[in-house]
Amino acid sequence: MKQLINVPETVVSDALRGMAVAHPQLTVDVENRIVVRGDAPVAGKVALVSGGGSGHEPLHGGFVGPGMLDAACPGEVFTSPVPDQMVRAATATDSGAGVLFVVKNYTGDVLNFDMAAELAEDEGVQVAKVLVQDDVAVTDSSFTAGRRGVGGTLFVEKLAGALAAEGAPLERVAALARRVSESVRSFGVALSPCSTPAKGGPTFDLPAGELELGIGIHGEPGRERRAMMTSGEIADFTVDAVLADLQPSGPVLALVNGMGATPLLELYGFAAEVHRVLAERAVPVARTLVGDYVTSLDMAGASVTLCAADEELLRLWDAPVRTPGLSWG
Amino acid sequence: MKQLINVPETVVSDALRGMAVAHPQLTVDVENRIVVRGDAPVAGKVALVSGGGSGHEPLHGGFVGPGMLDAACPGEVFTSPVPDQMVRAATATDSGAGVLFVVKNYTGDVLNFDMAAELAEDEGVQVAKVLVQDDVAVTDSSFTAGRRGVGGTLFVEKLAGALAAEGAPLERVAALARRVSESVRSFGVALSPCSTPAKGGPTFDLPAGELELGIGIHGEPGRERRAMMTSGEIADFTVDAVLADLQPSGPVLALVNGMGATPLLELYGFAAEVHRVLAERAVPVARTLVGDYVTSLDMAGASVTLCAADEELLRLWDAPVRTPGLSWG
Repeated sequence: MKQLINVPETVVSDALRGMAVAHPQLTVDVENRIVVRGDAPVAGKVALVSGGGSGHEPLHGGFVGPGMLDAACPGEVFTSPVPDQMVRAATATDSGAGVLFVVKNYTGDVLNFDMAAELAEDEGVQVAKVLVQDDVAVTDSSFTAGRRGVGGTLFVEKLAGALAAEGAPLERVAALARRVSESVRSFGVALSPCSTPAKGGPTFDLPAGELELGIGIHGEPGRERRAMMTSGEIADFTVDAVLADLQPSGPVLALVNGMGATPLLELYGFAAEVHRVLAERAVPVARTLVGDYVTSLDMAGASVTLCAADEELLRLWDAPVRTPGLSWG
Repeated sequence: MKQLINVPETVVSDALRGMAVAHPQLTVDVENRIVVRGDAPVAGKVALVSGGGSGHEPLHGGFVGPGMLDAACPGEVFTSPVPDQMVRAATATDSGAGVLFVVKNYTGDVLNFDMAAELAEDEGVQVAKVLVQDDVAVTDSSFTAGRRGVGGTLFVEKLAGALAAEGAPLERVAALARRVSESVRSFGVALSPCSTPAKGGPTFDLPAGELELGIGIHGEPGRERRAMMTSGEIADFTVDAVLADLQPSGPVLALVNGMGATPLLELYGFAAEVHRVLAERAVPVARTLVGDYVTSLDMAGASVTLCAADEELLRLWDAPVRTPGLSWG
């Protein structure tokens, strides 16, 4: 497996150097590994800070900007960032209105964000946390107690980011983030494994002619393997897996997310099948986002995330956002 | 090679159905295969129409919207659209101010856009054309007489689209588009082949441990194969190949483009190396765009496009754009 890298040891810092040249509106601290809004701290605004292992880009660094995150802390590939990064991010972005940590549910991330919250509070920063655990595929996994946090993270960061941009106080932003976290579910499939720079090759085997249903974003095992299915069959299985756990009473926001190596041409076709299934299940779709947002390096495959939406969430979804990875309005 | 599709025959129409549900601001005519701005024709504005074989998404359909294209015509995978699509796109978008066809230099595309221009003029639409032929890797190729059109297309569509949005007349928009076409050069590398739906597997062989320098966006042969190189070495070779043909007297706009399967993490690292080489060659970089924009299905690799910029081109680059694939301002 060939990779466009120098040496595995510098992959993350090389990428941060690239982000720095591509996005002058962001402050990229390559040495300390934090990506911060160039205009931080924003007076009176609650700051959103997230982070996690690298290899899921544009998550999280690509979601830093007006309307979404104030800072992101990238760890090594598929490895939690350390508390020191999170504390620096919190103090760099806190305007006095407090900081919300958006934490994907992986053991290392949870421990480190917990520790960082204590340290930041010692420095006078008010911190709230929200845990994202939207993956319905499995309970517990290689890296997780409970459910894994995957595509739902984008919804928590976008929607809570929009409320923070409106000037809401920390307790309201945190409550909204938790409400989103409780309203969002995901399920993913892999058609090929991913290859980490350190390993230089596939992190797991997936035989020709088989796919893995319920894959995690680090290639953690899913629910089961089956003979390869069509896009329509995968959409049926995936949407039904999500709807088995989320019964929306109104419209949903949908993310049809590529894992990294699946062509956008295929992803749009899959989005059409996801819509077909949702129509058959009488679930109206208010908005649909299609693309590579929460990836797993060069894995081929896709995930579906649905978020039950009300008027407030629709308004926050449509609110302007200006980040490298998500921009509209 | 597994693909997220139903059957090869419906890949393009499935993707158009997906674009229709994801982008209600666009009018997607699945049957006739055209993607049009929902508010077309825009009164008094020159319309930009492009198109080409599918498999390069978000190019071209993902670049339809305010500030860029008015319509796009997707052909079958790696196959030119037919003149009928282009004529429909022209008549659907012409406000009376005329239409500019943006044509990548492949034999089929050039012939079909020529024929479409004649047919559209028979229907009373004033048509101008611009040919994009920015790939310095080879002269003539499997699908081309002369140089291939690749990443430079994005610059022609963005910059001429911005001028058209300002209300400039057809002759000025066409002249600007030709000036951009003459100011832009690209060079790409492949680390892996691409797989078309029809073939169901790789369209060419690329041995383990080798890369192809000068690859085309359909997997057409490039200049040479070498033993795998580091990101920094690839940046040296690629930037120097471009600068051998383009001697900018001022700043450049840079596109560091992923071919489809290369992780964004790697692409940002490559962008850092591209910047290093340009700094060493004393070429200032005014703007840098990093991502998958002109792709080749699931090919791994990247290309570099440089556009020599003056004040006018910088202004047009920074102008607002609202498309599924490119959005800022």
